[in-house]
Amino acid sequence: MKPGGPYGDVYVLRLGHRRERDKRVTTHVALVARAFGATGFVLEGVCDEGVVESVKGVVARWGGPFTVECGVSGRRYVRMWREGGGEVVHLTMYGVNVDDAVPAIAASPRRKLVVVGAEKVERFYYDEADWNVSVGTQPHSEVAALAIFLDRLFRGEWRFIDYSGGFLRVMESPRGKRVERKG
Amino acid sequence: MKPGGPYGDVYVLRLGHRRERDKRVTTHVALVARAFGATGFVLEGVCDEGVVESVKGVVARWGGPFTVECGVSGRRYVRMWREGGGEVVHLTMYGVNVDDAVPAIAASPRRKLVVVGAEKVERFYYDEADWNVSVGTQPHSEVAALAIFLDRLFRGEWRFIDYSGGFLRVMESPRGKRVERKG
Repeated sequence: MKPGGPYGDVYVLRLGHRRERDKRVTTHVALVARAFGATGFVLEGVCDEGVVESVKGVVARWGGPFTVECGVSGRRYVRMWREGGGEVVHLTMYGVNVDDAVPAIAASPRRKLVVVGAEKVERFYYDEADWNVSVGTQPHSEVAALAIFLDRLFRGEWRFIDYSGGFLRVMESPRGKRVERKG
Repeated sequence: MKPGGPYGDVYVLRLGHRRERDKRVTTHVALVARAFGATGFVLEGVCDEGVVESVKGVVARWGGPFTVECGVSGRRYVRMWREGGGEVVHLTMYGVNVDDAVPAIAASPRRKLVVVGAEKVERFYYDEADWNVSVGTQPHSEVAALAIFLDRLFRGEWRFIDYSGGFLRVMESPRGKRVERKG
């Protein structure tokens, strides 16, 4: 598959990021977005260079396409996305189970914005989302929730993405560490 | 299913944790272990109370069984696990693809130790593991890799785990936040 699969664009909007405290987890959210088939990452509120530069570095070395934006208003972004004809999926442990929700989400051809909160998420997002989706009802991690959601949405086909650009590639191997330069 | 599924015990060993820098990511690793069906979490090297207390708090409120250990030698733990008849799965982006490796791992009834590194992992673990398993060949997150591995191992049935003890439970809902007290 190509990043975005049949939807053209699948973006991940990260809410409530706090510098320092969330730097590594938010970077993981962005890298999971890219590795599991999304086409863009949007950081609400701040432009944390630590996060943005890490993610851009991965795209430069490993390929894309993958867009990175930051410092936006989350509410405005969600409204804009919906006005542009896209749909909004909010990942929350309080939503509808991913395995029950994904068939309808996957069947809709609309561009998708996946909203991922840090701690408390405002009511606005529960109300404005087309879908509130839960990946299990136990507390765990937004990184894991995003990976499982995208895995289900793309039916595991993220594994076959051929990234363009970049110059590094890993070859699978039972014992080794085989990294090659492309081309 | 019950935590551990047909294997009795599935433990997650976290290597190379550094206080402060890795506190949140390591906590996510431990909570993902629990939520996706593992029965224990082992932190190599240090006893970071921030991590240990968070995880124990989740077990107290949301149920178990789920064991937490810390401050062990990773090498000794791996050797001990194998001597006790268990098998060792090392998650690394350089291994064999999860979808290719899991059928054989799942078919073996042995107790499983899943090894999850932070940054660089010593050669020892590549050599001693029964399986080096990769969740994609792109850089992303050990939190996501663990979630996908356990999801595949348990075929998505972690969703139906009924935890014992604890007093909180989330009810799925399309718009809401419904948390109930058990019992």
